[in-house]
Amino acid sequence: MKPFEPSDPDFAARCRDSFQRQKAMALIGAEIGAIEAGFCRLELPYREELTQQHGFFHGGILTALADSAAGYAAYSLFAAEDSVMTVELKMNLMAPARGERLLAEARVVRRGRTLSVVEMDVFAEQAGRRTEVAKGLGTWIRLAGRPDTPEVFSNGG
Amino acid sequence: MKPFEPSDPDFAARCRDSFQRQKAMALIGAEIGAIEAGFCRLELPYREELTQQHGFFHGGILTALADSAAGYAAYSLFAAEDSVMTVELKMNLMAPARGERLLAEARVVRRGRTLSVVEMDVFAEQAGRRTEVAKGLGTWIRLAGRPDTPEVFSNGG
Amino acid sequence: MKPFEPSDPDFAARCRDSFQRQKAMALIGAEIGAIEAGFCRLELPYREELTQQHGFFHGGILTALADSAAGYAAYSLFAAEDSVMTVELKMNLMAPARGERLLAEARVVRRGRTLSVVEMDVFAEQAGRRTEVAKGLGTWIRLAGRPDTPEVFSNGG
Amino acid sequence: MKPFEPSDPDFAARCRDSFQRQKAMALIGAEIGAIEAGFCRLELPYREELTQQHGFFHGGILTALADSAAGYAAYSLFAAEDSVMTVELKMNLMAPARGERLLAEARVVRRGRTLSVVEMDVFAEQAGRRTEVAKGLGTWIRLAGRPDTPEVFSNGG
Repeated sequence: MKPFEPSDPDFAARCRDSFQRQKAMALIGAEIGAIEAGFCRLELPYREELTQQHGFFHGGILTALADSAAGYAAYSLFAAEDSVMTVELKMNLMAPARGERLLAEARVVRRGRTLSVVEMDVFAEQAGRRTEVAKGLGTWIRLAGRPDTPEVFSNGG
Repeated sequence: MKPFEPSDPDFAARCRDSFQRQKAMALIGAEIGAIEAGFCRLELPYREELTQQHGFFHGGILTALADSAAGYAAYSLFAAEDSVMTVELKMNLMAPARGERLLAEARVVRRGRTLSVVEMDVFAEQAGRRTEVAKGLGTWIRLAGRPDTPEVFSNGG
Repeated sequence: MKPFEPSDPDFAARCRDSFQRQKAMALIGAEIGAIEAGFCRLELPYREELTQQHGFFHGGILTALADSAAGYAAYSLFAAEDSVMTVELKMNLMAPARGERLLAEARVVRRGRTLSVVEMDVFAEQAGRRTEVAKGLGTWIRLAGRPDTPEVFSNGG
Repeated sequence: MKPFEPSDPDFAARCRDSFQRQKAMALIGAEIGAIEAGFCRLELPYREELTQQHGFFHGGILTALADSAAGYAAYSLFAAEDSVMTVELKMNLMAPARGERLLAEARVVRRGRTLSVVEMDVFAEQAGRRTEVAKGLGTWIRLAGRPDTPEVFSNGG
């Protein structure tokens, strides 16, 4: 795959700033591991609060992590005045997500004017060994000229 | 759709007990709204900790809620000694998830010996009005003869 | 679900005309069973040429039928000068597709300005009995102001 | 990704034999380009009969090709006495599929005892240039001890 040319040279700072405002990522304890043009890695340390009934990372938490990673992979290629929304995503949970840490890596596969296709790979690290536990594919939309700031959007809740 | 005949008459208590052990659902604040044979509704009150960068419910949190609802819809039809795992799921986020509460409803569409297909509908309630904000479709697997208890499964984290 | 108001009163004729130009549908032998605002049913009689290695309808043929049905369900709600493209779709094949005929029904779930979400249900008819053999969910895009005519698009093949 | 060890040394002949019995693949004109352990490439030359209303390869035909490729990628790793069925698949159509030929490549991502996860990449070749036009992800099931022969399965159509 050829490298992507970002529209905004400050994309990394813009992504980190937006990520800071994703309170759901703070709730689960996710952190940005890497942000490049068309790529994002998020990391999530194990905590008992993140598990399902068998004591593994909950598949939904894993999917939330991958969703955010993919959103920032797409967003990294947008202009400064755009924002991003998830259109849809599909995840295959391939193995129990057990370990000390999850890594969700997202790569833009197709950068369109309106829609971006992103693939996601989620790994669990256990005793220094990395296993792919989930793979995903989804679509993100560019909201052109609608900056990613709280003033522009508001929740009625 | 015809109603399903449960394999285990105590399915509701079994589902509620398993749900209690999903710590990720406690973390986000989800509760069981209804559990029937082949159907589950989970509810999630709004909290700022659950939002994405625009102040709406985070799509990943919404997906986690729907995933759990679907797992219990499938699990409700299993025998007492079985457990359930998500194989894969796909979600379309159709509108910003804004409001006081999310409702994730999951219905078994096909109950197979090994695989169950479940559809998910997620609604946001705002000022007494309910809007469908996401729709999903996915596959859950029955782990036959492997009860849903912490002793059977263990996480190395 | 509330009924949809079409943008173009002649949507049915427009859909039938476009369907006539889908040569792949002629190749497999598909026909329009019904076209309404936000809904389309396509029908496909059994022929040995449509089978997979076990003698059932090939899952890919079934998916092609559902894809076209969904495209026309979305297209029925567009303006006369728009065209439609599939963004993505997901199909669960729930049972072997055996029988004299397939019916693919597609319903618009969310009609957006740019993106429409459509659900698909595929039934096989055998000896007068109808069985749901597949269920799908996907996304279609409106190409605004780009009419659905051969002159506008061209293939280099 | 590490290479897969096939269960059946004659997997390639077994896949080619099964492919010969997929009449739908003959109908559209698909051919096996390559078959390896956990990998399959199918090729489809352009014909007007395969197009949608704009003259490109129909997305459903493309998906049928990718579905078959993925089924054989999974099947290549099975024992001689097993057969394969599609559980579900998801395709993102990323660009108009125009050109002289389609290539659908499928790779097993996770080989499970019961379920295999396969990713698909579809390319269009035009004037010697290859463009990725679609990407997919799906799940295939192993029917253990149920050989892939017409006698075992039968269609009532």
